[in-house]
This record gives sequence, structure tokens and C-alpha cells, in this order.
Amino acid sequence: MTDFAATKALFALPEGVLYLDGNSLGPLPAAVPDRIDAMLREEWGQMLITGWNQAGWMEMPMRLGDRIGRLIGAEPGQVAVGDTLSIKVYQALAAALDLRPDRKVVLSDTGNFPSDLYIAQGLLKMLGPDYELRLVAPEEVEAAITDEIAVTLITEVDYRSGRLHDMAALTRKAHEVGAVTVWDLAHSAGATPVDLAGAGADFAVGCTYKYLNGGPGAPAFIYVAPRHAGRALPALSGWLGHEAPFAFDLDYRAGAGVERMRVGTPPVIQMAALDCALDIWEMTTMEQVRARSITLSELFIAEVEAACPGLTLASPRDPQARGSQVSFRFDEGYAAMQALIARGVIGDFRAPDIMRFGFTPLYLDEDDVRGAVAILAEILNDKLWDRAEYKARKAVT
Amino acid sequence: MTDFAATKALFALPEGVLYLDGNSLGPLPAAVPDRIDAMLREEWGQMLITGWNQAGWMEMPMRLGDRIGRLIGAEPGQVAVGDTLSIKVYQALAAALDLRPDRKVVLSDTGNFPSDLYIAQGLLKMLGPDYELRLVAPEEVEAAITDEIAVTLITEVDYRSGRLHDMAALTRKAHEVGAVTVWDLAHSAGATPVDLAGAGADFAVGCTYKYLNGGPGAPAFIYVAPRHAGRALPALSGWLGHEAPFAFDLDYRAGAGVERMRVGTPPVIQMAALDCALDIWEMTTMEQVRARSITLSELFIAEVEAACPGLTLASPRDPQARGSQVSFRFDEGYAAMQALIARGVIGDFRAPDIMRFGFTPLYLDEDDVRGAVAILAEILNDKLWDRAEYKARKAVT
Repeated sequence: MTDFAATKALFALPEGVLYLDGNSLGPLPAAVPDRIDAMLREEWGQMLITGWNQAGWMEMPMRLGDRIGRLIGAEPGQVAVGDTLSIKVYQALAAALDLRPDRKVVLSDTGNFPSDLYIAQGLLKMLGPDYELRLVAPEEVEAAITDEIAVTLITEVDYRSGRLHDMAALTRKAHEVGAVTVWDLAHSAGATPVDLAGAGADFAVGCTYKYLNGGPGAPAFIYVAPRHAGRALPALSGWLGHEAPFAFDLDYRAGAGVERMRVGTPPVIQMAALDCALDIWEMTTMEQVRARSITLSELFIAEVEAACPGLTLASPRDPQARGSQVSFRFDEGYAAMQALIARGVIGDFRAPDIMRFGFTPLYLDEDDVRGAVAILAEILNDKLWDRAEYKARKAVT
Repeated sequence: MTDFAATKALFALPEGVLYLDGNSLGPLPAAVPDRIDAMLREEWGQMLITGWNQAGWMEMPMRLGDRIGRLIGAEPGQVAVGDTLSIKVYQALAAALDLRPDRKVVLSDTGNFPSDLYIAQGLLKMLGPDYELRLVAPEEVEAAITDEIAVTLITEVDYRSGRLHDMAALTRKAHEVGAVTVWDLAHSAGATPVDLAGAGADFAVGCTYKYLNGGPGAPAFIYVAPRHAGRALPALSGWLGHEAPFAFDLDYRAGAGVERMRVGTPPVIQMAALDCALDIWEMTTMEQVRARSITLSELFIAEVEAACPGLTLASPRDPQARGSQVSFRFDEGYAAMQALIARGVIGDFRAPDIMRFGFTPLYLDEDDVRGAVAILAEILNDKLWDRAEYKARKAVT
């Protein structure tokens, strides 16, 4: 069994802070500053340009991709790290559409993270007026997968409610009607067990600054199923996706596999931080993290419902139907979250009334959960939003 | 006048190294490791998610854009930092083409960096079979700018020869025939004075890991002329280019100005390194750096031509016609460059026979130039490539 007290000790959490926002930005692994310092002084400083080969910088996008692949059900050589999640959504969606040129409809849902929708809107506009982005409610996705659909673009875990889509079932349905799947794992990688190969997913993308603790602005990743990798369209066809980047040919020839989804010069300093953060995952398994995440989130729900009757659960009650976060609705949620943060309990707020809390077993335990709920209950009893000065302030803003 | 001995002291160059490859990757500014360490521990570590506002991470792409803008003739609010150069080429080219939807030809030249051409090939393929990437020799660009051309996609300084295009003249010609200009400043920013506003450039892009010393994988930048910024198409329409990213609307609405060219979560650690590296530019001006770059490169050419008669100048002889690098042709250039690097003189090699040297006044002086040429002359006199064991090795590789 994983020693979660040992993993917790590997994070540099501030004194007095209960951090329930690892679903937005993971905290600093204590080993990262020294690792980065060594990278800066010994690699960049001493090796200079030769670091690209000598220090293995050029291979990092694939090496880190393999490390992430182990957490999401991918084999080595199937995941490349780089760019941002929005860029990787663009690449995956363009490649997926290219596999079904006879169809023009991209299906997504209103619970998807807006940037995925924006990126799709931009891409479809460029592809021409025949293309359509069709949005349905999350619970209507399965029924909406018809033989009109070219590509399903779905984020597995809803960023607001934590609602978990059934990746295997939706992928099966998509394939039955001849659609191609793009899965966004932003709130899945490092949070829930993902089995891309088992589900038969076609493309997947995700970020590394949430549950993987890669740091602010850590790079994204992209997975291409091996059956597509050799012919997938690299819409953003940069030189590092070229078959032979240093031949400096005038014509693009796509690299052999998912390497073709590399674009430009990768962010070596960010990748060094991510590499260090991924070391912590060697101490556990996704299944053990998931089991403990459910323990913590179930405890949180029970404690909140006992102590804070004004709050309404906005996440699925069945832990198997949600990711690693729990959301509650509360009319004064914005004010309550500000008060929580001021008391060192960091969650976040999503309009109009969602208070969102992430459960990250690598550095949270039962005491943290109980402590957070105790402070939340105090704030709710305090009802600062009923005070005259709060109402006056709210009226002018 | 700039105290270039003082700027040189701000770089952490390895003992015994003469670094003439700052045109590929600038060296480590000595202040960067401590700055990054503080950012990691005090910002990421202590502020966690609140660092996006409290530490100003969210504003860094525009704040750093303004700092770079001062070096390339742009006003505040006209440059955004982020992503990689290839991504920014894609955005600029897509937006430029959108301004001339009636024309289908993109003009570039065979001296352009291949990734720019690859990105253009990928974009044009997506836009449809009517589109054409037309490549001419660098010296034929001006004549090839006809009223068929939608967009000129030109890198100002040739990455191999250092040949400098006349930005003002080509932009004028392009505008005379109704074409839109995209300038790649990869080898210009921090190397030569650039006056985007004066030249009337429409779009410009560049990288920050060469002459701006931002570190391996440092982010790129994009400039949009103010006359276009409010209507330029953000083809990669990510959430941070949205008018109100945190409203989490389902529909994309482009931000007011060049902010719309932001895409996803920016690389905060890389940006902190770049921010620190840009401090050094407060000690000088682009004009003084340029004057000294010419002094150093002229000295280098004179010394090489006196001491190394086997080498042929591959860069323009007129310093006004080249950027901040000098290339020589030499049949055994690959072997000679390997030998140079082994002796601590770091330049680089570009097939088939180009030995390339960058001149970066912030940390190179006359003694460095003379020292490098002395070692080059020894290597050439040594003629290791004439030795039997070298020839035998070469025959099998």
C-alpha cells in the first residue's frame, strides 16, 4: 500500500493552509526548486546549446509522455508532451476530423471546458461553413452520438460538477456509428484511472499543472492511438514534428508516430519541473490514489452535509460517477469562498454559485478534510453576507 | 555609452568557453537561478493558485510583450508573449490571410527557416487546394511581390547566411500591391534594430531564446499592428484570448487587441526566466548593441580571412546587409566545427558546409573574437580531416 504520509511530506505546502484546489494548480513538490536550480546551472549554464543532446532536452517531450502514459493507459511512444492544452485540442480535433472528411459535425457538451469549445469554434470556422459544433447537455451526449457525428470532443470530468463521463461506453457508441473520439483528460490525469487503450480512445489530450503538479503553465500532452499515429494529420506542422527536423528540408514530412504532434522548441525549464513532479507517482498507483480520493471526498460530503445545511451537493452522489473533486451550490458561494481562502482553506468558485473542492491524496488526509469543513461551518454560522457592511459593499461592485 | 564589460559580467559563462552560438541559444544570465528559485518557493509554493493574480502571472504575457516591444519598435499593448514561434507563425499567417480572402498565394523564400514553411504548408493544406506557398530565392523576393500575393512570410535575417532583408522596402512593396506582411524576427530581436511601426509591418513573430537569452524553450512573441489588432482572426482561439476568459461563456469572443492572440495557460516558470534575462537590456540600447555587433563581426571576418585562407565568407560582406551572425563555407566544416567545440569555441554547423558564428555584444568582446580565431586557425593548420583515421571513420558514417 502507498504510504500517503510519505507522499504528503514531499510537498512544500505553506503553514496553515489546507489546499483543496489541486484540481486547478497542484502545489510545489519540495524537490522541484533544487532540481530546477541544477538544470539551470549545470545544463543551461554549462552545456549551453549542447544541452539539447547532452542533457536529453530534445527527447524530453517523448520521455515525459511515456511517464504520463503509464497513468492513462497508454504504451510508451504514444504520448507527446508540449504546448498548452488548447493547442493540443486543436491538433487532436483537426486530426480526428481529417479521419472522417465526409462528416461535418463535432459533438460536445455544455459542461466541457470553454477553451475546448472556443478552439473548436476557431478550427471549424477555418474549415468552412459546412462544419458545425453541436452542443448538448452532458447527460444527452450518448443519445446525440449519431451517424451524423464526425468527432466527439468530450472532457471526461466536468470542470464544475466533477461529473464523470463513461469513456468506454461513449467511445464504443461513437465507434458503432463511425465517429472518432477526442478525450480531454484535464481533470482525469492523476485524478482517476484512465484506460485509453482499453476504451479504444482515438485521441486524448490533457494538462499537467493540476493533479500532476507540474507547476503554473506546465506543458500539455497528446495521445494518438497507434492505429492512427502513422497517418494522423499534424495540423500544426512544426519542425519538431518533422521526420528529420535537422535535415532542414524545405518540405514537411510528418514524423513516424505521435512525434508528429510535436510543434516547436519545447519548454525545457517547465519540463524539468514536471519531470521532478512525476517522480512522486513512482510511489503509488492510480488505483490506490483513486480509492483514497473516494474516501476523502465521501468524508467531505458527509461532514459538509452534517455541519453546513445551507449547501447543496452539485456533484454526483455516487463516487464512481465523479472525478476527484466535489462541488456544492450555495447562493453566497462567492463570499463564502473568499472567507475560506482568507482562513487558509483554498478551494475555488465558479459562477453562478459553485464552491469547488479538489481531493488529492498525494498531499491531503482526513485531518485536512475535517479541518476544512470545521472552518467552512464557522464561516457559514458567521453569515458575513448578512451583515450590513457586506451588503453595502456588494451593492456597489 | 553601454558598459559592455558590465553586461558581460551578468552572464554565467563556463570557464574556458568562447560562446559564439547565442544565435541558437543565449547563455544563462547569472541572476536567473535565484530569480526562479524565489518564484518557485515564494510564488508557486506560498501563493499556490492565487499566484495568477497576486504574483501577476496572468499579466506576464502582456507585460513581457511590452518589454520586448521596446526592442522591436512596438508600442505597449502590441506584443503578446506565449507558445512557440511555430505556433505564433500559424496565428499570424492565418490572420494575415484572413485580411486578404480574395488572394491565395503566400510568398516566402528558400532562406526562410523550415519550420515557418512547414507551418505554412499545414495551414494552407487545411484552408484548401486553392492555396499556394510560393518559394523564391531570397534575392528574388522583392520582384516576386505582385498583386497575386496575399501574404509575404519572410524571416528578416537568414538563419544560415545572416543575410538581412530590407523590412521597410519589402513592406512598402507589399503594401503597394495590396499584400499583407508577416515578419519573423527570430534572428532579429536583440540582434538588430527593428522598427515595426516605422516599417509599417502588419504582423511579426519571434523567439526569445536566442539573442534575448530567455533559456531553452523560452516562449515566443507576436506583434499585431494596431490597425489590425481589433479585427485580426485568432485562428487558435483559446480561452486566454477571450474577451472575458473567466466568464466561462460557451461562445468565443475575441479580446480587444493583441491579447486575442493569447491561447492557453502561459508558461510561468519560463516567463520568469525571460523576465530576468530582459533586465539586462535596461543597461543598453539596440543601437549600441548593433554598433558593437558590427565591430565584433568585422573583426572576426578580417581575422579569419587573414589566418584561415581555406574558408569562404558565406554572409554578406556589407555589415549593413547582415544580421548579427557570420557564416563561412568550408568543405570540412562539420569536422572543423566539432574540433572547435571540443576546444571550447562553440559555434554551429548547417549542412552542407556552413560554419556559423553569432556575435552577441552583451557577453562577447574583442579578446573573445581573437581567441576564437586563433583556435580556429590552429585546427585548420592541424587538418585532422586529412588524417587516415579520420577518413576511415568518415567512410563508415
